[in-house]
Amino acid sequence: MKEIFIQEKEKRISPFDVDGEEIDYEKLIKEFGVEPIENLKNKKEIENIDFYKRGRIISHRDFDKFLDAIKSGKKVSIVSGLNASGSMHFGHRGAFDLCLELQKKYKIPVFIPISDDEAYVCKKIKNQEEGLKNAELIAKQVAALGFDPKLTKIFIHQKYTKIYNLAIKLSTKYTLSTIKAIYGFKDETNPGLMFYPVIQAADILLPQELYGPHLTLVPVAIDQDPHIRLARDIAEKFGYVKPAALHIKFLHGLRGGKMSKSREGSALFLNEDLLKVKKLCMNTLTGGQETIELQRKFGGKPNLCIVHEYLSCLFDDNLEITKEREKLCLEGKILCGDDKKVLCEKFLKYLKEFQEKVKNIKIEEFLLKE
Amino acid sequence: MKEIFIQEKEKRISPFDVDGEEIDYEKLIKEFGVEPIENLKNKKEIENIDFYKRGRIISHRDFDKFLDAIKSGKKVSIVSGLNASGSMHFGHRGAFDLCLELQKKYKIPVFIPISDDEAYVCKKIKNQEEGLKNAELIAKQVAALGFDPKLTKIFIHQKYTKIYNLAIKLSTKYTLSTIKAIYGFKDETNPGLMFYPVIQAADILLPQELYGPHLTLVPVAIDQDPHIRLARDIAEKFGYVKPAALHIKFLHGLRGGKMSKSREGSALFLNEDLLKVKKLCMNTLTGGQETIELQRKFGGKPNLCIVHEYLSCLFDDNLEITKEREKLCLEGKILCGDDKKVLCEKFLKYLKEFQEKVKNIKIEEFLLKE
Repeated sequence: MKEIFIQEKEKRISPFDVDGEEIDYEKLIKEFGVEPIENLKNKKEIENIDFYKRGRIISHRDFDKFLDAIKSGKKVSIVSGLNASGSMHFGHRGAFDLCLELQKKYKIPVFIPISDDEAYVCKKIKNQEEGLKNAELIAKQVAALGFDPKLTKIFIHQKYTKIYNLAIKLSTKYTLSTIKAIYGFKDETNPGLMFYPVIQAADILLPQELYGPHLTLVPVAIDQDPHIRLARDIAEKFGYVKPAALHIKFLHGLRGGKMSKSREGSALFLNEDLLKVKKLCMNTLTGGQETIELQRKFGGKPNLCIVHEYLSCLFDDNLEITKEREKLCLEGKILCGDDKKVLCEKFLKYLKEFQEKVKNIKIEEFLLKE
Repeated sequence: MKEIFIQEKEKRISPFDVDGEEIDYEKLIKEFGVEPIENLKNKKEIENIDFYKRGRIISHRDFDKFLDAIKSGKKVSIVSGLNASGSMHFGHRGAFDLCLELQKKYKIPVFIPISDDEAYVCKKIKNQEEGLKNAELIAKQVAALGFDPKLTKIFIHQKYTKIYNLAIKLSTKYTLSTIKAIYGFKDETNPGLMFYPVIQAADILLPQELYGPHLTLVPVAIDQDPHIRLARDIAEKFGYVKPAALHIKFLHGLRGGKMSKSREGSALFLNEDLLKVKKLCMNTLTGGQETIELQRKFGGKPNLCIVHEYLSCLFDDNLEITKEREKLCLEGKILCGDDKKVLCEKFLKYLKEFQEKVKNIKIEEFLLKE
């Protein structure tokens, strides 16, 4: 769903634009009427979550209840999906990294819908064959991130067409007006795209449909919250529990802005040609001074440095490593070029191993059976 | 699709209203821009079709081409569906009787979609479980009409959810404007109902999707023509052949008007309780005079007699029997009461045997495999 929504809302939300201006998450929190993560009651519990400690979670809906449910041993699940417009890039990893952390910590089942239909009705791909090919690649990539096959169910809409039945079930509680208002659709919109938000709601409610009512968490970028609201609005009418949400920060693209495949040179893909990785990496924006002398004298700006963000979000094993680099940078003891080289090596090593994992993944173990 | 469309258009088309006023088929032919069947080029061929001889076919689209394709040994198919709001009634038999006649005569594959989704999004049924139950009954009833399992593929949307993939494929060539204009949908419409016409187009084009481009015939009541137009409008954009249509007359209800389950006492169902058949039958409207004396003197009006219509459309083995009864009636030699008794017996015998057949049908032989 990402792609549809960003398309419609991009002007309104404009997360951290290409010049590097910082996104106003506070404003978004107010606009979407969600809870800032700082107000969470179960502070102690969330402070154990690395993703939170890194400041990557900004707000939530009912995450308190989700933590309570875990504590009291109740059934819970997580849903996090992706559209099939092409290979995953590192910007897609965020939500899945969070899913992985929660799955490992609490043994939570994770459901991963891959929407080739969305990519097709948004005209991001030429035909359904391309959508299926992309979806099959993405399924392997997601699985290769390290999910537990016993606790993970990936489903591709073109294969798991039963999702249509659940969408039809839910559809009678919506009106075109609601969908049009949320997504900005007009009468020129094609009926597949118009129907798609209902499929999205079905994705979110599928675990409850299959395994009985329970609380489902949906980790998403904050601009995706309206999809969750759409599912929450009707959940109780069908005897489901309203799903909870965690809103996470966008990962920046190599040249600033949100990492996006639609902007040339913004995304680093998980299936990237290893021979091109170095050149892409060396192009990453930093928060460095104009000259080495100035950098040595005044230090860099790690909070504006995308190299630092990538190292921190994608590679640092713990927060101490991140803080140490931040300190050294502020003191002018690291140069951007050196950090870029480190980043290059990390990306290369990671991608080499990851692409090998993708090749060897037994995807059948992860697929939701019809 | 029948139910949606009738709902929206009923006021406009008003086929043969409850008082027995005759429907203006000529007006409908003009309104829908279809070809009167009399203008058909292949007159000789169609004159072999009993359904035509009985005056039950009123107009067509490209039926010439369909007959030509048969003649030259080309691949052809027929699609004729039903929504799953309840058991079939005799009003539903017409299109299938025509399919059967064509299947027997020319060995044509017949595809029969059963749309439980339509019944649900139109709120004709309470839930999808009811839809599936109805659909499974209808599937058996259709099969029991005498279709050849080797040449017949029945599919229930809730089971054959792959239909969603084809609908998604087609959806990008439609706009909401088109769907709204044809079906009279508003922004209060639920998105499932809004999407349904695309599923309907997918039903019509499925044989071509599965078996390559060829001419498909869709026999329908003329008020259903817009669905066919919807499929014809986009067929060539996907490399399919524009489907052809035959428009057939409605069967009247027991008390006049179109036979319809939504009007109390109008429909005789194929799963009717045998103990109730006689009472229902004896209620059928006739074209008789007010007294026996007048009937003997002036004769009846078989063209306005629903008993005669049922005997003729549902039971007469050949046209001679029909013509003979018509003649005797006009001459005042048959009384309505006697004819009703004959009809009762025929209905009872038919339903008893038919319901037995339904019980014993091996539906698996008829189902389209995923």
